[in-house]
Amino acid sequence: MSKSHGRVTLPSESHFLDETKEIMTRWGADALRDSDGTKLDEALKKLEAKIYTTYFVARNHNQFAEQHLDECQQLYLMSPYQMATGERLTIRFMEGYFDQQIKPDYRHDVTRFWEVIDRTTNQVVSSENWQLNQQENTLTIENCQPWHEYTVSFLADAIWDPTQMYNHITNDWGEVPHDIPFDVRKPHSQAFMTDYLRQWLKDNPDTDVVRFTTFFYHFTLVFNDLGKEKFVDWFGYGASVSAEAIEAFELEYGYRLRPETFIDEGYYNSTFRVPTPEYQDYLRFIQRFVSQMAKKLVDIVHDSGKEAMMFLGDNWIGTEPYGPYFGEIGLDAVVGSVGGGTTLRMISEIPHVKYTEGRFLPYFFPDTFYEGNDPVVEANQNWLSARRAILRKPVDRIGYGGYLSLAYQFPKFIDYVEHVTDEFRDIYQKIATVSPYNGLTVGVLNAWGSLRSWQAYMVAHALEYKQIYSYLGMMESLSGAAVKVVFLSFDELLTNGVPAEVDVLINGGDAHTAFSGGDYWLKPELVTVIRQWIAEGGGFVGLGEPTAAHHGGHYFQLATALGVDKELGFSLSTDKYFTEPLSDHFITADVTRFDFGESMKNIYALTEATEIIEYSDGEIHLAANQFGKGRTVYLAGLPYSLENTRLLLRALYYAATKEAELTKWFSANLHCEVHAYPALGQYAIVNNTNQPQQTEVYNGQGASHQVFLNPSEIKWEVITNE
Amino acid sequence: MSKSHGRVTLPSESHFLDETKEIMTRWGADALRDSDGTKLDEALKKLEAKIYTTYFVARNHNQFAEQHLDECQQLYLMSPYQMATGERLTIRFMEGYFDQQIKPDYRHDVTRFWEVIDRTTNQVVSSENWQLNQQENTLTIENCQPWHEYTVSFLADAIWDPTQMYNHITNDWGEVPHDIPFDVRKPHSQAFMTDYLRQWLKDNPDTDVVRFTTFFYHFTLVFNDLGKEKFVDWFGYGASVSAEAIEAFELEYGYRLRPETFIDEGYYNSTFRVPTPEYQDYLRFIQRFVSQMAKKLVDIVHDSGKEAMMFLGDNWIGTEPYGPYFGEIGLDAVVGSVGGGTTLRMISEIPHVKYTEGRFLPYFFPDTFYEGNDPVVEANQNWLSARRAILRKPVDRIGYGGYLSLAYQFPKFIDYVEHVTDEFRDIYQKIATVSPYNGLTVGVLNAWGSLRSWQAYMVAHALEYKQIYSYLGMMESLSGAAVKVVFLSFDELLTNGVPAEVDVLINGGDAHTAFSGGDYWLKPELVTVIRQWIAEGGGFVGLGEPTAAHHGGHYFQLATALGVDKELGFSLSTDKYFTEPLSDHFITADVTRFDFGESMKNIYALTEATEIIEYSDGEIHLAANQFGKGRTVYLAGLPYSLENTRLLLRALYYAATKEAELTKWFSANLHCEVHAYPALGQYAIVNNTNQPQQTEVYNGQGASHQVFLNPSEIKWEVITNE
Repeated sequence: MSKSHGRVTLPSESHFLDETKEIMTRWGADALRDSDGTKLDEALKKLEAKIYTTYFVARNHNQFAEQHLDECQQLYLMSPYQMATGERLTIRFMEGYFDQQIKPDYRHDVTRFWEVIDRTTNQVVSSENWQLNQQENTLTIENCQPWHEYTVSFLADAIWDPTQMYNHITNDWGEVPHDIPFDVRKPHSQAFMTDYLRQWLKDNPDTDVVRFTTFFYHFTLVFNDLGKEKFVDWFGYGASVSAEAIEAFELEYGYRLRPETFIDEGYYNSTFRVPTPEYQDYLRFIQRFVSQMAKKLVDIVHDSGKEAMMFLGDNWIGTEPYGPYFGEIGLDAVVGSVGGGTTLRMISEIPHVKYTEGRFLPYFFPDTFYEGNDPVVEANQNWLSARRAILRKPVDRIGYGGYLSLAYQFPKFIDYVEHVTDEFRDIYQKIATVSPYNGLTVGVLNAWGSLRSWQAYMVAHALEYKQIYSYLGMMESLSGAAVKVVFLSFDELLTNGVPAEVDVLINGGDAHTAFSGGDYWLKPELVTVIRQWIAEGGGFVGLGEPTAAHHGGHYFQLATALGVDKELGFSLSTDKYFTEPLSDHFITADVTRFDFGESMKNIYALTEATEIIEYSDGEIHLAANQFGKGRTVYLAGLPYSLENTRLLLRALYYAATKEAELTKWFSANLHCEVHAYPALGQYAIVNNTNQPQQTEVYNGQGASHQVFLNPSEIKWEVITNE
Repeated sequence: MSKSHGRVTLPSESHFLDETKEIMTRWGADALRDSDGTKLDEALKKLEAKIYTTYFVARNHNQFAEQHLDECQQLYLMSPYQMATGERLTIRFMEGYFDQQIKPDYRHDVTRFWEVIDRTTNQVVSSENWQLNQQENTLTIENCQPWHEYTVSFLADAIWDPTQMYNHITNDWGEVPHDIPFDVRKPHSQAFMTDYLRQWLKDNPDTDVVRFTTFFYHFTLVFNDLGKEKFVDWFGYGASVSAEAIEAFELEYGYRLRPETFIDEGYYNSTFRVPTPEYQDYLRFIQRFVSQMAKKLVDIVHDSGKEAMMFLGDNWIGTEPYGPYFGEIGLDAVVGSVGGGTTLRMISEIPHVKYTEGRFLPYFFPDTFYEGNDPVVEANQNWLSARRAILRKPVDRIGYGGYLSLAYQFPKFIDYVEHVTDEFRDIYQKIATVSPYNGLTVGVLNAWGSLRSWQAYMVAHALEYKQIYSYLGMMESLSGAAVKVVFLSFDELLTNGVPAEVDVLINGGDAHTAFSGGDYWLKPELVTVIRQWIAEGGGFVGLGEPTAAHHGGHYFQLATALGVDKELGFSLSTDKYFTEPLSDHFITADVTRFDFGESMKNIYALTEATEIIEYSDGEIHLAANQFGKGRTVYLAGLPYSLENTRLLLRALYYAATKEAELTKWFSANLHCEVHAYPALGQYAIVNNTNQPQQTEVYNGQGASHQVFLNPSEIKWEVITNE
């Protein structure tokens, strides 16, 4: 195989020309980028490569920002809870916030934009009963109910960009000025953003791709009074609000948003909250605005003959690549960070762009590239998990970030990435234009649906939390499985029913989160449409606390379909006779040990018909049930592993009543997977481990043969019609 | 010490005279009783002992019952959930019930007494839309909502007494007639109960004590179609209902009880359900009736010169020994089964009787008394746990049940009980009339309060369930601890505030159960009265999910006081910095290992002020917090053990801010306890294990000395004023 070339973006830096050339050749890179802390010098820019240049729209222009401090970005914040011990209560509402980031907005009428709430009764306190002390940043309430708790919801100016703030504090940048984020909803900022870009494009003739890092509103990231992270929500629209936005919203929607719409009892509309109708209106309102503004910038970039690329992170709020307005922006490309299969699919499936690019791990930073550490370990893990997803739907390009000069000191790493880039291009040229074989279509059902495709259960980008890994594992398993995955919201299901292509619905999460669904399950229309669909042959997989909302004697509203429910203590008086697991089951045929992660307590079978598959410690963790012509499967949790990936795949086929089809394009050894591309006439057998593996491989007709794979190997074979 | 005598009841049986005499002498028994399956012959009845004779009021009189089948007892039962797949649905509502126990009542107007409910919408289906088929025991609904689930709530005759049913089936009694329970609310039954008793008293002149086993209504116990237990609630008023009761209630209260009042979404008002106002009215209604009827019987017994004793079990429903009407019955005594310290206190604290009696374990039945087994092991465990409680508040008598002839074959057991009876009498004669030293007063706060003193968290008498042992352990620890325990309901607290004597409130249980409190915590009046009380110096101990009801941004409504809350997934975006446990703490000074039982997930500290005492697996299981002048302690669970008893005691003293007083009348070794009786001038040092123990014992002035105790030993010392 002659050396392939292209589809790879390299970070470089000044005074590193010869080595850059060498690595460009070895990795086949056809684009160069600057990074945080690096710049490309003229010599580099003249190389035979596209040049990406990072561009900040709404920060990093302090000269402008300081002249227009009334146009800086804003946030709604809640004070700490404060208990009244008498009839007067003074709340220091800034307590716990970082005064270098946050400044109360006293410019706008506080009686219109602030709210004081008695959290013990959830009643708003009339503004006649409170007054501000602007010098002290305190608010005093009169006529309190003693021993009630009160909070202040206040509008604040955000006077430091959170990403720069993080880097500034972390790297001890000292006197470097704080980037003040400004809001392009406001007139001077909006004019500035286009004027500045036009000039910048003239000043940067060598740039081929303007890499927007990114647009207007940073995801919600608030620091505490010690200068440490206090609140982080990668999906948070917190920084998109402003007095002007609220007024504009009222004009457009005919009703006014309360501060509580944003404060949300202090949860700030985390993605785990079932979104209120008001918040959903607000999201669409911001999305339309962001796409209109972004389109302006993209058009200007295009007018200059360059490409516009968006970084999926930092100030991406409102762009919603899977939302209804994203296409209108007209971007050429999106680039995002790849933490594994799930985040790869989150990038690779973004519609309406010419190409997508994944930034792989590890970053070329000293936390990984230090003497004695082998960066190949992380690179291999990252590649193995991402490759599963690439084989389903590839990104169009891959790349890296950080200091190339640092990575260059690790020759084995340079060798390894040479192998990765070759393998990526080989996969890409084979499968980019063909669809893989999908044995099933799986619909992931939650409150967000397709708007947040591949984004379910995430808090901060690629960070694990104790409360989410048992659900994220399901997403990661799906990201590389030979099934088609679609994302459905409850509202979509209520409007359109279950799409015809769907074989199995998955619903899961902790009770009352947006992913389980909470009060959505009290809607008779929702439970009936799904009951009917299952009874007529559909499959349903529930994870954790699926369909949970206590009502009508059930906790799981699809308890009867699932064959299991969760004991809340109310029905302890009812004997639970069904505790014997089946000796074997299709779903667990390949499993040698169970790992349900955080798992779920007190799940029990409703009738003897429930197929108990795993029972321990007095509770069920895995069960299946026939419901009419359809089937359900209950799983207590599913952290990511190859074993659990197989368990899920079998659960899906079982739920779909398509067990016989499991062994089409199938590896008996669960450490390997088979991806078939009928239109290509080839199939890939992939070793997802870095140990050698032997496996029986089944082709599309069910015939099988033994295959030996080296560590991490991918083997391509030709489809024959046996 | 000369041989003591009295306060012991012996089961005996015919043709066992000499051995009975021997054991009477050795155990000092002064009363003889018959048992299930045994009778006392004439010779036994002439011995120098009180004779107890079991008496059944409302069953075991089939000649009468069969002539008055329209007066048999009734139950409300719910059919299984049945899903409509079209507009017509036929429900076989008897499915899963035992037709030898349950018979649908077609005598009374089903449109008035039955209910069909759409459980998907929780709407009642008009009786115009359904009709019965009495031959098939089916009910057909027309105009259904397809894919909704429906249930039938039906009134049924209970045609077999549950206890006799259990014994009949378990012991394969074959042709023995089924005892039909009749309802003394109905005219013939009410006349019969008094007539028969009068005659019986004449026929049983040797009887000294009529042992009512018991009165009118059995606790709810329903069998399934396989003749096995389907539903058991030792507190259940299920069998007290009838068409007549509902009519009488309506007359008295001016509103009609719906079937759903009893069905309760299929939970049948388990004690774990927060009782509805209607159900609370109904409980009082039944209690008044039961006490009026029971008084009639007791008066007749007294007129015959005999004593009336009630067995706390089987048909005890409505007597509520801790309720407002119990005293009116005029009973002489109550006897109950002692499973440990908690059940002992449940018996020994019953007011308004001349004496209480505890029936100890093991029963003299072949399940314990078989060759190769040592019944002393169970007897010793039972005695050690009961003795802790006796030392706080003794029963007046102890006794045993079963076949004396069987126990007689185990000489070591006879020896051991001789020791127990002597030790019991010794304790009793010392402390019966004096109060023990109580270092604190503890108020156990739940929806039931004093009505269910020492009965919290129980499902079936003395049976452990996975979901309750982590809470029952708290009760068992308290039952023998040197603190005064009072039981408080939320309603009592709302009316009267926290009683002045209380040092520490305890609230705990799974969320939304009657023990945690559920929606009670949404009442501002409740949270404010407790907040104020703590802030002014009170102590509060929360167990499991105390004060839990999601509202106003808190899950625990006293979160701010507790210093901890539970992460439900909504606030994952908020950083949780407070994870470092303190290196040591007063509460854990004696603990060598933690056991939180089922424990609780995802508990986190709200502020740095929270004293984290135990933190593992990313969550807190033990914490304390200063709140105003008071303190709180959070515990994730507390299964019973001597270690956890000490942990709880220390938590209580800490919460009360009385740490210095812990070492009054105190054993440094947690396997021993000290009980002081100032009025007696003595204190007991008790070894609660069956290993020898050495301990430092602190007297009331804080001075200490070493004491060595043999296995299970109790040592009495004289209080001196050092």
